[in-house]
Amino acid sequence: MTTLDGLARAVMERCDTLACYSEDTDCLTRRFASLPMRQVNQVVADWMSAAGMTVTHDCVGNLIGRYEGEKGAARTMVFGSHLDTVRAAGKYDGILGVLVPLACIEHLHEQGRRLPFAIELIGFADEEGLRYHTAYLGSRAVTGTFDPAVLQFTDDTGISMSEALRLFGGQPDPVLLQTPRWQRDELLGYCEVHIEQGPVLEAQNLPVGVVSAISGQRRYMVNFLGEAGHAGTVPMPMRHDALCAVAEYILSVEDFARETTGLVATIGKLQVHPGASNVIPGQVLVSLDARHQEDAVLEQACTALYDKAIRISQDRGVAVDWQLIQEDSTIFCAPWLSTLLAQSIEDEQLAAYSLASGAGHDAVALSTLTDISMLFVRCKGGISHHADESIRLDDVEVAIRVINRFLDHLCSMGR
Amino acid sequence: MTTLDGLARAVMERCDTLACYSEDTDCLTRRFASLPMRQVNQVVADWMSAAGMTVTHDCVGNLIGRYEGEKGAARTMVFGSHLDTVRAAGKYDGILGVLVPLACIEHLHEQGRRLPFAIELIGFADEEGLRYHTAYLGSRAVTGTFDPAVLQFTDDTGISMSEALRLFGGQPDPVLLQTPRWQRDELLGYCEVHIEQGPVLEAQNLPVGVVSAISGQRRYMVNFLGEAGHAGTVPMPMRHDALCAVAEYILSVEDFARETTGLVATIGKLQVHPGASNVIPGQVLVSLDARHQEDAVLEQACTALYDKAIRISQDRGVAVDWQLIQEDSTIFCAPWLSTLLAQSIEDEQLAAYSLASGAGHDAVALSTLTDISMLFVRCKGGISHHADESIRLDDVEVAIRVINRFLDHLCSMGR
Repeated sequence: MTTLDGLARAVMERCDTLACYSEDTDCLTRRFASLPMRQVNQVVADWMSAAGMTVTHDCVGNLIGRYEGEKGAARTMVFGSHLDTVRAAGKYDGILGVLVPLACIEHLHEQGRRLPFAIELIGFADEEGLRYHTAYLGSRAVTGTFDPAVLQFTDDTGISMSEALRLFGGQPDPVLLQTPRWQRDELLGYCEVHIEQGPVLEAQNLPVGVVSAISGQRRYMVNFLGEAGHAGTVPMPMRHDALCAVAEYILSVEDFARETTGLVATIGKLQVHPGASNVIPGQVLVSLDARHQEDAVLEQACTALYDKAIRISQDRGVAVDWQLIQEDSTIFCAPWLSTLLAQSIEDEQLAAYSLASGAGHDAVALSTLTDISMLFVRCKGGISHHADESIRLDDVEVAIRVINRFLDHLCSMGR
Repeated sequence: MTTLDGLARAVMERCDTLACYSEDTDCLTRRFASLPMRQVNQVVADWMSAAGMTVTHDCVGNLIGRYEGEKGAARTMVFGSHLDTVRAAGKYDGILGVLVPLACIEHLHEQGRRLPFAIELIGFADEEGLRYHTAYLGSRAVTGTFDPAVLQFTDDTGISMSEALRLFGGQPDPVLLQTPRWQRDELLGYCEVHIEQGPVLEAQNLPVGVVSAISGQRRYMVNFLGEAGHAGTVPMPMRHDALCAVAEYILSVEDFARETTGLVATIGKLQVHPGASNVIPGQVLVSLDARHQEDAVLEQACTALYDKAIRISQDRGVAVDWQLIQEDSTIFCAPWLSTLLAQSIEDEQLAAYSLASGAGHDAVALSTLTDISMLFVRCKGGISHHADESIRLDDVEVAIRVINRFLDHLCSMGR
């Protein structure tokens, strides 16, 4: 029988193995319906089969392994995460959420053990949306929330999603893509293991944490319109420098977010026009990304941030244009599943730390169909979406132990 | 005899005429040694000839008209400005400094009047440097300060300056280009009429002003290096956002410049890396342009601005890299010439307002060989380098009257 330590080691080795399947030769890039995606699906399918699972691919190219439950088991517990990556990605984002549950299922299989529910483990075909600038393609297809309009989207080389999906062996059929894989009452719930992609667990000195919610998010584009002018000839008091107005705004956003517990607000994109060293900026366009796990707090915050932009622009004789680009409500994890995860962590003599996820995950799409839960695993320095993404072997072992216990708790609840 | 009012009207019409000679069909763009430059030189040469001047072109393509002085006149007073433009230019920047003195010479010629000195009027072939990213090509050639290395520079289409100059009818000969047109003692001085390109005269409600100096300038590139991270997952207190550091810096530069009389400081260029709306900025590169008419004040200011960058970066755990890109000392106008210009303005019952030029002009290159002076003409809203560049007919008439009187004062000084 493989030890849990050995299973953790295997997970780390498998992460290394899968990182070799890349579209780029010098870094890891694996887009939806690409050749490396097909190869990875094949490799993981073999591992699933060896763990006693029956393996299928669905119409959007998701890889689905099913580990049957005891005779008469009525419901299914779903685990999963994505197998695609961003450009120049790390080895663990998404991947870990497939390989940790797979290790737990292998453990069950070695023991010849069946649970009072079936387990389905899904490697989602696309979460990052790198190829078609979409979100949650894979998890939307299994939940029947797939938008068929995106089938017409084309990638950088002009290949439509329909065509890519057909070449990949999928079925670009709007009806199939909008048919949920399960009825709500067939499911027990969904659990996703994922690296934190932030520095909180590291700062808490904890290997894992329970996700309370996936924070709501609003994204704006804010355009400040001042007056361009010659950098040498317009005296300071006569200027309406759009970049100075934006600088004041950036600091006021930072101050406000620091003062508001749980709020993160970021200006990540900034374009200056005309953008010459000897010209006073006449126009500056910035992005504003704000997130909080309480929708009401987020809404109040965005109103306050809007008011600040208006006040600053008025003080400086600059115009401001404010445009909402994206708005997502907070998705809460199911308390009963989170409680079971917390108990499982405490069973391992660890503090059960709860934190919100500021990033979106496949769990968002799954929440439309079933109760969701997430286990975060510490990552080094909070670094993600980068080749330096790094996790610890002993943290992976903790994650495997916690998911094992979580499965036990699910059994003992008689579901 | 043409009235001064008629001469002013002619100047405005001529500005309109010259604006038709453009490389672009939808805006005014006239680069060094282009076909429209050749056409403009021909048109202006005809006007010069009609005003009793002998016309030549020099090795760099400058257009030079000479109005001889009285018999035995030993020295030459030089007027001039440039006939090239920036991309999508206005009609007056440079051009006015050729056409106003030309109107005054026409006036002399109509009276059959000769002065105790010769006048040379130069239409410089390149001041803006749009084609080869150079400065003062024309005025450096007449003062012998031309750098022959630039002859090898190529334009966007791969044509070298040598080749362009040869095609234009010039002589790309390093020896000729480095030979000053005059010896110092052959010259009386240099006077350049130019639109202000700033809003000061308009704010003072004055048609013209006397330039005291062309301000010294320093240009830096400052790189702030923080830590990139996920906009959703890194809590505010754990961030080292390079853009927040830069925002603080922009405001401290603005504050400092507002507090320091005569200083202008501008951050006109800003690049964020990675520059995505959901990523905390890891690196921000900004330009810093600072100008003051006293070199010592400018130096102290730049030291203070450097110290501010260091303090902010230390407070925020961000690194900073500071690089000097360009450094020009202040060029002072000759007090005796400025005094004559001021007297000429007062003769017109106007206040003689003195101001520094924050922009560079051909006068900078001429200052290496002779005493310089400049007369600024009010421009609407301080707008320049733009199709909206605009001046008033009555201001042009004032400029012509002032330069007429200035020539009279030069005569009566017995020079």
